[in-house]
Amino acid sequence: MQRDVRQSFSFALKTRDSGARLGEIATPRGRIRTPAFMPVGTAATVKAMLPETVRATGADIILANTYHLMLRPGAERIAKLGGLHHFMGWDGPILTDSGGYQVMSLSKLRRIEEHGVTFQSHIDGATHLLTPERAIEVQCLLGADIQMVLDECTPFPATRDEAGSSMELSMRWAERSKQAFQTLSTPGQALFGIVQGSTYPDLREQSAGVLQDIGFDGYAIGGLAVGEGQEAMLDTATVTTSVLPEDRPRYLMGVGTPQDMLEAIARGIDMFDCVMPTRSGRHNQAFTWGGRLNLRNARYADDPSPLDAESACPAAQYSRAYLHHLVKSEEALGAMLLSEINIAYYQELMSGIRAAVASRAFGAFRAQTRDNWARGDIPPR
Amino acid sequence: MQRDVRQSFSFALKTRDSGARLGEIATPRGRIRTPAFMPVGTAATVKAMLPETVRATGADIILANTYHLMLRPGAERIAKLGGLHHFMGWDGPILTDSGGYQVMSLSKLRRIEEHGVTFQSHIDGATHLLTPERAIEVQCLLGADIQMVLDECTPFPATRDEAGSSMELSMRWAERSKQAFQTLSTPGQALFGIVQGSTYPDLREQSAGVLQDIGFDGYAIGGLAVGEGQEAMLDTATVTTSVLPEDRPRYLMGVGTPQDMLEAIARGIDMFDCVMPTRSGRHNQAFTWGGRLNLRNARYADDPSPLDAESACPAAQYSRAYLHHLVKSEEALGAMLLSEINIAYYQELMSGIRAAVASRAFGAFRAQTRDNWARGDIPPR
Repeated sequence: MQRDVRQSFSFALKTRDSGARLGEIATPRGRIRTPAFMPVGTAATVKAMLPETVRATGADIILANTYHLMLRPGAERIAKLGGLHHFMGWDGPILTDSGGYQVMSLSKLRRIEEHGVTFQSHIDGATHLLTPERAIEVQCLLGADIQMVLDECTPFPATRDEAGSSMELSMRWAERSKQAFQTLSTPGQALFGIVQGSTYPDLREQSAGVLQDIGFDGYAIGGLAVGEGQEAMLDTATVTTSVLPEDRPRYLMGVGTPQDMLEAIARGIDMFDCVMPTRSGRHNQAFTWGGRLNLRNARYADDPSPLDAESACPAAQYSRAYLHHLVKSEEALGAMLLSEINIAYYQELMSGIRAAVASRAFGAFRAQTRDNWARGDIPPR
Repeated sequence: MQRDVRQSFSFALKTRDSGARLGEIATPRGRIRTPAFMPVGTAATVKAMLPETVRATGADIILANTYHLMLRPGAERIAKLGGLHHFMGWDGPILTDSGGYQVMSLSKLRRIEEHGVTFQSHIDGATHLLTPERAIEVQCLLGADIQMVLDECTPFPATRDEAGSSMELSMRWAERSKQAFQTLSTPGQALFGIVQGSTYPDLREQSAGVLQDIGFDGYAIGGLAVGEGQEAMLDTATVTTSVLPEDRPRYLMGVGTPQDMLEAIARGIDMFDCVMPTRSGRHNQAFTWGGRLNLRNARYADDPSPLDAESACPAAQYSRAYLHHLVKSEEALGAMLLSEINIAYYQELMSGIRAAVASRAFGAFRAQTRDNWARGDIPPR
């Protein structure tokens, strides 16, 4: 799909049901049906998947990591090569993070100061500086359709004071990010703010208020899925969505398990990203409508049944015995098929949720899906 | 494709040009256009490729390794699961080797005796016995369309005496393999004999004569591509094809480079297999009409041109810069795309050769192709 320059970024909230929202984001590179799960294409590839396979699972949008791409192959290089979409062969919308999270989790010798964060590359040790302005510049060089402000992902646990000053720094960076975006972006690109404040409700409310005063195309909830546990995560999501505007998409960053997503959607979240489906696929795990399977388990060695007969994914029609054989033999095809199966499952879950909300049956869908998961691993037939 | 039980195995030699042969093998699972290259699906998967991708490159037939499959997941298990075609999702013809070659190259503590070869699995150290009868039984359990006699791949170099007694053992095993095949096989399956005799022309002639007296559906040339060099390999192929029947396919086992195949085809060879295209694909190498490229080379970092604009393979349309990035980042997609590109190149080479022979232009095609290769790596544009 060519970028349609007449199309600006917009979000339409179509309906609500039992806390869940059905919507659609329009972008110059196509629509994003929400609730949406964004497969993670860290280094300009959703690991072990062809772009056309990612698309075939039903994904409308993927995420790419600014931190990885600015270090290798470099944002200026990708821009010279025609931008990230052309470079990696993905013509749909791309959301990029700001790089801040990975600077904290992957780089060495990082130093946070008011003007930005200085860090050493985990690849070659070279020193880099990431400022709010540079984070936006990199995302514009990549050509990202949805860009994120630079923030500090507050470590967990944090005292109220630590969480407060961390959040306030992020808010000042959000303001600078917005200014840079207004200068550097092209029409149709969008910028999301990120609510911080750890698990402190008043800090989250304060952060959401500051961001709305600045004004963003969407609002993300950051600093969660970092060890606080599902209950604290969902409580924080509930508090935060209650003070976010209805007419903008809400994005819960780095989440999560199918269980996490189902519950967060019930609290008004619209967008997710997580490495779990692809990472699990490289570690012998399959997500299915009947629960999670470890294909290395010897119980599958003689199981002729398809991995998930309920899935529309062609890869899920291979027998459990074959998938077991592939993972035991450490064949690349095992990771390829399981990554496809898992991304397809995440997309089918989103699609099922969207259909349920549209028909005012989200409550029943949620109960039924939780029930299926609770029955645990699928036994061999 | 379902197995067509009315179709028996047959070979039609359509035309000859400058030593090269154009033919077609009919099998119950579809035709095999010759000259043919068979991608190697060692452990019931052509490494890092989906079966539909293998098919899309133009491959009519794949090879699978008896040694690997008998050890894991086991031939009886595959038979119970519906046979190898169903197990791995490949509905075209499959050729299996006898296991003999890999017993020699991979297993521990092997002992060759008249009745067969005893060896320890490289996976778990368990002791196994492979006899000519068991080799055929395993191939029938797998459901292979073309099966190979058990032989001893004579090590290189070998004295005339060593090569002679090794060859004679292989001929006795060939006779026993044929008898087992007559008992165990189903209609439409084929059995190929394997000519041995190292680089000794008289031994090769003697071996070819013995095999023809036994009678096989096709004749392979074994014991080459084991260090004897291209000239000795081609000389031996020339000697051997000169005493093989015209009306049966000839298969040069384990060969080879595009150069090897082009020259062997000029000497009347019809079939090949080799791990080179997939193995090279996992090691950053790409085969193209303009020569071989090492994608790790920094010269490609900023090269926006497609890997091989002359290729019909979709993977070959990615830029060299992107493929360079993938291999530098050790992303699985790099090995996936390069394996596809290389198998597609091998198939396009075969297809080009078949078209050239059909139009009596093989000599010119061969000269032009050698000329392109001699120009070496493609420079960045």
